[in-house]
Amino acid sequence: METVQTYIKANQKRFLDELIEFLRIPSISADTKYQGDVLKAATWLSTELKRIGMDGVEIIPTKGHPVVFAEKKVSEHVPTILVYGHYDVQPVDPLNLWNSPPFEPVVKDEKIWARGSCDDKGQVYMHVKALEAMIAEGQLTCNVKVIFEGEEEVGSVNLGDFLEANKKKLSADVVLVSDTSIIANDVPSITTGLRGLSYVEVEVTGPNKDLHSGVYGGAVANPCNVLCTMIAGMHDENRHITIPGFYEDVDVVPDAERRMMNMAPFNEEDYKQALNVNALLGEKGYTTLERTSIRPTLDVNGIWGGYIGEGAKTVLPSKAFAKISMRLVPHQDSDKITELFSNYFKSVAPPYVQVKVTALHGGQPAVTPTDTIEYKAASAAMKKSFGKEPLPQRSGGSIPIVALFESILGIKTVLLGFGLDSDDIHSPNEHFGLFNFYKGIATIPYYYMFYAEMNKK
Amino acid sequence: METVQTYIKANQKRFLDELIEFLRIPSISADTKYQGDVLKAATWLSTELKRIGMDGVEIIPTKGHPVVFAEKKVSEHVPTILVYGHYDVQPVDPLNLWNSPPFEPVVKDEKIWARGSCDDKGQVYMHVKALEAMIAEGQLTCNVKVIFEGEEEVGSVNLGDFLEANKKKLSADVVLVSDTSIIANDVPSITTGLRGLSYVEVEVTGPNKDLHSGVYGGAVANPCNVLCTMIAGMHDENRHITIPGFYEDVDVVPDAERRMMNMAPFNEEDYKQALNVNALLGEKGYTTLERTSIRPTLDVNGIWGGYIGEGAKTVLPSKAFAKISMRLVPHQDSDKITELFSNYFKSVAPPYVQVKVTALHGGQPAVTPTDTIEYKAASAAMKKSFGKEPLPQRSGGSIPIVALFESILGIKTVLLGFGLDSDDIHSPNEHFGLFNFYKGIATIPYYYMFYAEMNKK
Repeated sequence: METVQTYIKANQKRFLDELIEFLRIPSISADTKYQGDVLKAATWLSTELKRIGMDGVEIIPTKGHPVVFAEKKVSEHVPTILVYGHYDVQPVDPLNLWNSPPFEPVVKDEKIWARGSCDDKGQVYMHVKALEAMIAEGQLTCNVKVIFEGEEEVGSVNLGDFLEANKKKLSADVVLVSDTSIIANDVPSITTGLRGLSYVEVEVTGPNKDLHSGVYGGAVANPCNVLCTMIAGMHDENRHITIPGFYEDVDVVPDAERRMMNMAPFNEEDYKQALNVNALLGEKGYTTLERTSIRPTLDVNGIWGGYIGEGAKTVLPSKAFAKISMRLVPHQDSDKITELFSNYFKSVAPPYVQVKVTALHGGQPAVTPTDTIEYKAASAAMKKSFGKEPLPQRSGGSIPIVALFESILGIKTVLLGFGLDSDDIHSPNEHFGLFNFYKGIATIPYYYMFYAEMNKK
Repeated sequence: METVQTYIKANQKRFLDELIEFLRIPSISADTKYQGDVLKAATWLSTELKRIGMDGVEIIPTKGHPVVFAEKKVSEHVPTILVYGHYDVQPVDPLNLWNSPPFEPVVKDEKIWARGSCDDKGQVYMHVKALEAMIAEGQLTCNVKVIFEGEEEVGSVNLGDFLEANKKKLSADVVLVSDTSIIANDVPSITTGLRGLSYVEVEVTGPNKDLHSGVYGGAVANPCNVLCTMIAGMHDENRHITIPGFYEDVDVVPDAERRMMNMAPFNEEDYKQALNVNALLGEKGYTTLERTSIRPTLDVNGIWGGYIGEGAKTVLPSKAFAKISMRLVPHQDSDKITELFSNYFKSVAPPYVQVKVTALHGGQPAVTPTDTIEYKAASAAMKKSFGKEPLPQRSGGSIPIVALFESILGIKTVLLGFGLDSDDIHSPNEHFGLFNFYKGIATIPYYYMFYAEMNKK
């Protein structure tokens, strides 16, 4: 194992240069304009997997963007790890807020700045480089299979079918994913809970064409105003979501667990200052840490309608739109919530408009137990590399595939991520600490080591 | 006068061809990209004014787009008419809803289809052609001055200064404007009231950058949601506007006038059907005709924030924006209302956001009396050309310059417009009936005739 760590140290500079090359590919899955670039990223990754000595490297087509597969079998007597990650990235707008172009990576202040640097190309590449080191030094202690998909940022829409069609090929003992955060560089943590997601787009139509607001204003319902009223009505004065049945399946977290959760290092003043807000807003009766982990939410991710160009246009628009997402907690069901939302939105639509709801994507919430070999190996690996035992932590984000792996492949997932919440993933100026990138590469081989050892016992 | 009408009939085809040429110039004043085209329209118009025999033609610069001036003096013993119009046009988006490109005029179904065809290039050109006919036939019975401005669609921001600086040059007995509508082609009408306007842009800032909605959602106020709530609160359940003091100066229209107003031909079912809405929405206690003329309104003209591209992006945006305009009635004051709005918006902003209000443009409401020579000449001219006495009508739109002419030049305005409310001005597929274009050209010389005659008495 010493030789693996020595190999990693000796090659750090090259690893970073390669990651920069990978980050230059604008693999935005949400926008069809970038379809060729998404494929280019898959091809780049598969070439790299071949180069480091992985076997059976394939770019497997789906109905959307392909999955990159590779494997390396060392023995029938050691467990098999299925590594999952995604090589697609979020869109980049608002582009004008980036300090440097999102696909021209810059290393500055001990961080690498680029779209995808943390989410998830940087974290994917930690696995590739850890595998390279283990293979090069003859220290791969587990069998390994990797699948890197290109549709995580659009809801992994074809991954379910892919898993169904490749159950045997993907058989493994654990899924290892690095697409989450640690609490701080000196407070390692392992994500044990993820929120699910229901993401919809709504369209409100008033008159059949844009009207002159002077001629018609005051007599004809304005769909922008109507949409605002409908959205405003989705929360009550306690910031509870008003959709009937929304909280029905929400897991009530025991007080003891809530107390534990609130012991994590958190300073509300620092948090507000970092975001430059004078006050926070959230569901009554819960702390910020609880609001972002064990409670469901509803947010407008985008809204538009009418004239949004320069200057003034006195239009009473025909249509208004919003993208709305709900973060879900165990045991809410994504499909059920989408349906509840849709029924609710239609039921509260006033007679002077017509509404349409389109489900964009969804994912199930998940919680992982901490008393398994899989979790314990991760904890031991982090303790070894960070010199500190990691805290179990529920995250507010969603990785819908965790529920898929369990339901289709019957395999539990370990979320061994190395990002920070402050990495601005999904935002302008996404970045990833060099500390985190290298610490990830260093930790992963320990996971293989401990997981193999614990399986022997 | 017969010869003038004969001249007009004989030249109809050419008049239309010239208008098409004028309409090809994309003189969008709101968008700086089109600055050169706005000037091109002014130049085109001045060339044409020279060609028809007007004197003293000038393109007079302002701080923004220039004013085209021309005059023709026939005698010291006849009154002087100041013709006002505007050669700038509204923006064209949403472009995809146009059946033909907005600046490639098409004649179809007895209408001319193009941006500006009715508002106001088509109506400006009626005056130019009426003047051509009167001059050509030696039948110009009044002195005339024309000013065509290039900033009406952005609130005539420099017209006040222009009028102040040119008081003497612009001295006249009446301002004649064709920038309004008639009730129907067989129901001629003259606009006797105009709503004013206060148009603002608001910006709501939550966190200092876009955030991941999973990591922060539920704990940090989302400016899109907050803006929706703030907009929703601007109307109460009776569709009264909730801004304190908003109705303070509203002129209470006597019941007798309201009864008269509601005798205008109007069928609510047809109105709804034309707009494809199942229900109308407006202030309680008022009819549709009243809501669009004697009552003030508040409409969102545009709203935007967050991710508005293709697909899904789970962002909790930093900012949300809206363009909001209020139509005002006598004797509301545009500046006062803008200030009331601004104070209100800031006062209701919750502590977890910061807000900014920018005044974009404004205009004062106006009502014109019907017992003047100026109005009576217009009524007689329409009766002559339509064969029917026109109805006085209050319009919902705004022409802020009417109040300016009165306050700066001390001249009353006659609103002798020939459009229809269904012409889709400010919307995709703006059009202007050939009937209306030719009827305008035919009616204007009668106005000069009657106005000169009535002044003699």
